[in-house]
Amino acid sequence: MRTRPLSKAYTLLEPGPVVLVITHDGQQPNIMTLSWTMVVDYTPVFALTTGPWNHSFAALRKTGESVIAIPTVDLLDKVVGIGTGSGADTDKFEKFRLTPAKASQVQAPLIQECLAHIECKLIDYSRKHGVVFLQGVAAWVDATRKTDKERRMLHAVGDGTFIADGRKLDRRRAMRSKLPAGV
Amino acid sequence: MRTRPLSKAYTLLEPGPVVLVITHDGQQPNIMTLSWTMVVDYTPVFALTTGPWNHSFAALRKTGESVIAIPTVDLLDKVVGIGTGSGADTDKFEKFRLTPAKASQVQAPLIQECLAHIECKLIDYSRKHGVVFLQGVAAWVDATRKTDKERRMLHAVGDGTFIADGRKLDRRRAMRSKLPAGV
Repeated sequence: MRTRPLSKAYTLLEPGPVVLVITHDGQQPNIMTLSWTMVVDYTPVFALTTGPWNHSFAALRKTGESVIAIPTVDLLDKVVGIGTGSGADTDKFEKFRLTPAKASQVQAPLIQECLAHIECKLIDYSRKHGVVFLQGVAAWVDATRKTDKERRMLHAVGDGTFIADGRKLDRRRAMRSKLPAGV
Repeated sequence: MRTRPLSKAYTLLEPGPVVLVITHDGQQPNIMTLSWTMVVDYTPVFALTTGPWNHSFAALRKTGESVIAIPTVDLLDKVVGIGTGSGADTDKFEKFRLTPAKASQVQAPLIQECLAHIECKLIDYSRKHGVVFLQGVAAWVDATRKTDKERRMLHAVGDGTFIADGRKLDRRRAMRSKLPAGV
């Protein structure tokens, strides 16, 4: 894992991938699969739709910390398994043979097998909408994945099907006026 | 365009595509490109990050109405053009040769060339976070697009590059316990 500038961390979530959200309640880590996420600010700030119906939510609110991990296509069956089981009765790292790695700013671990991570601090919660707002405080990418193919993310359709990243299309020149400095 | 059951409309946004948000201020329609969106509820409710810096925002707040349109890969250069210009000085339908089509519940039009649309009513706005919450009230899909290839959506990375939808992966059986009834 190599650190990624925080100013570019929003580009990990903007494409809309399925993510794994990792928490640590002080006793043990937990992982949930989430697809309802959004970038809210370049600083970066992210919104996630979640609430008491997710076992991880209690740890997120108690500790104010979590890690957003971006899995790739090869992890699809683990992503589905994590999304359909509950951390209430399972150690998901053990069950899905995932390797925890130490984060820098939060107690929740990174997942060695994932493409990228954003360590986050909880900054707000809208009970009305079931939306949490997270400030990214550190970001990591797996620098050993060199090709676009190894970096393909997953997108959940929400009906049990998923879409893998396809072709990359470059419109940097046309978009220049809209991009934040340094991106 | 064929109507799509509202109960399945969230599956149009859950994969995280770039969208076009169409408004109508009473004088003329406008279009903005947006990538910071999220599903908030199956009913469906959606969140968009936007604010006074977008010309369309005033019309959205004034009328309380908008249409979320999903463009496909073939529309990339129009999506980029719409995203880098302002509706303050341009008729985007004319400039980008897009065909307006009548919506059923809102004054803002659909875009004939897009894959799918969700007509929306504004239900809440968080000034603090710059996030609007929209209730979907009608949904449409272009039923003439029969193949996955014709239905490929676009995902913005946020650095001027875009990713087209790739391979579709079916995990319906494994996901069954987590899907709402009828999806």
